[in-house]
Amino acid sequence: MKIAIIGAGALGLYYGARLQQAGEDVHFLLRRDREAIRQRGLQVYSIDGDFHLDQVQGYASADEMPTVDLVIVGLKTFANSQLKSLITPLLTEQTAILTLQNGLGNEERLAQLFGRPRILGGVAFLCSNRGEPGVVHHLSQGPIRLGEFCGGLSSRAEEISAMFNRARVHCTAVADLKKIRWEKLVWNVPFNGLCALTGKTTDQLLAHPPSRTLIEEIMAEVVAGANAQELTSPIDGAAFAAQLIKLTEGMGAYQPSMMIDREQGRPLELEAIYGIPLQHAGEQGIDLPRIAMLHSLLAVTEG
Amino acid sequence: MKIAIIGAGALGLYYGARLQQAGEDVHFLLRRDREAIRQRGLQVYSIDGDFHLDQVQGYASADEMPTVDLVIVGLKTFANSQLKSLITPLLTEQTAILTLQNGLGNEERLAQLFGRPRILGGVAFLCSNRGEPGVVHHLSQGPIRLGEFCGGLSSRAEEISAMFNRARVHCTAVADLKKIRWEKLVWNVPFNGLCALTGKTTDQLLAHPPSRTLIEEIMAEVVAGANAQELTSPIDGAAFAAQLIKLTEGMGAYQPSMMIDREQGRPLELEAIYGIPLQHAGEQGIDLPRIAMLHSLLAVTEG
Repeated sequence: MKIAIIGAGALGLYYGARLQQAGEDVHFLLRRDREAIRQRGLQVYSIDGDFHLDQVQGYASADEMPTVDLVIVGLKTFANSQLKSLITPLLTEQTAILTLQNGLGNEERLAQLFGRPRILGGVAFLCSNRGEPGVVHHLSQGPIRLGEFCGGLSSRAEEISAMFNRARVHCTAVADLKKIRWEKLVWNVPFNGLCALTGKTTDQLLAHPPSRTLIEEIMAEVVAGANAQELTSPIDGAAFAAQLIKLTEGMGAYQPSMMIDREQGRPLELEAIYGIPLQHAGEQGIDLPRIAMLHSLLAVTEG
Repeated sequence: MKIAIIGAGALGLYYGARLQQAGEDVHFLLRRDREAIRQRGLQVYSIDGDFHLDQVQGYASADEMPTVDLVIVGLKTFANSQLKSLITPLLTEQTAILTLQNGLGNEERLAQLFGRPRILGGVAFLCSNRGEPGVVHHLSQGPIRLGEFCGGLSSRAEEISAMFNRARVHCTAVADLKKIRWEKLVWNVPFNGLCALTGKTTDQLLAHPPSRTLIEEIMAEVVAGANAQELTSPIDGAAFAAQLIKLTEGMGAYQPSMMIDREQGRPLELEAIYGIPLQHAGEQGIDLPRIAMLHSLLAVTEG
């Protein structure tokens, strides 16, 4: 499959590299890593086995890229105003667009720009980060769940899923994209914001009983917001939260992406992870006081 | 009156200096400022008029101090384990003890150590800080309300109040100490913690609509906790909060004491301002989610 990766941070580089390694025709829009990858290729250090790509099709501008069958969007959501100019040059009538971005609102924005039928969304449970230019570290996890923005289980979603599985990325196609988006928020809402705000890693927050309790309370709020959204089936809050906490304990001293964004002086993905979920919950009459408070604290400490 | 000031930070130095200026016999237990005050006296820069005390009765140890009629306690509450050794040498059978410390629990601790009848408590609405050693800045406000730990309006409380008024410190004796303690918390709980956590001054938090809303929500939680405590009359939450916010806007870019404590690497007064109020509210079945969250966030970022 001919694929464009837009937003080649740690997530885009890792999945793109796995797809190329498996024989797909992958084209990367590169910024920070372009010169290093042009000179030395792309090095992946992965718990599933290190590998190096000698030849990478990297571009400085979307206008230089070919049209493709599939666009994978890994852009930070605070850069969503660039989606139109970055994706338009890549499209044929059949091109599908899969956003693996964080939080809510990304499929809606892509659907407004390019029409609902093209759009798929996915959630990635990936621990990865970039090292020096041209190097990506894959630390743990990595499975993807994806589905159609219009709902239902399509053959297209199953084909993309099969392709990821051939590339050593465990992937599942699901019928209810909205549910998996909210499930991911059960992790993202507490850990991204609390780690960014306090400067503490996930294990430090879990080791301290009051903040561990706070994480559980915030997870319960996300579940309450989720289960008001007409999902195909409700999230089993207590069991799901316990499972996520156990998973997180296995990740050690992890720094969520928002914590790294703050440390490196980048904007935070506040709208996608806090603003839009709070708005959707509020529209259903659900008050989420701790999440609203976390959102306020993150916002007032921006810039 | 013969007075000992225990805990001569900005508050103890300022009130002690005003009392000495008015002719009272004041004895200061000094730490940081002792050598500077011994050499150059105590300089007060005050919006109510600057003044200098050439001779100050300062001591390095409570054991060197005389017994007094009144002990005024301005110690940080995280140092409360020192109360017994610092106060015992100062007491006659008649000595009264007035704590102007922050939050809840201080009168109870003093009562356990020295008996309930001696104990008065007061809340100070003072904006002051220490400059270089031997210098204290009085920025705005300064009134004190005080009352008996055992309740009711005593002639002793009225005498102490009259003494403060003669010393240019507006002071009122009240019958319901518990109520004024909780009223002070309506300011301390939001501003101390939020400023310490975010590193933002009071005016910055009030200028940002989401954090301004959060301040109002936290004030409403404190009022809910207060009004469950069998006060002589309930706090009128909305009007009182509006009045405090207006007052705070007049204070400009103010740094609450907890923010300064954090910046200077001192412990925070978490038990007095958060832990004990949350416990008292919980005992009445009142859940204060935002205050509990703020407490957790402050605790996990300690040390």
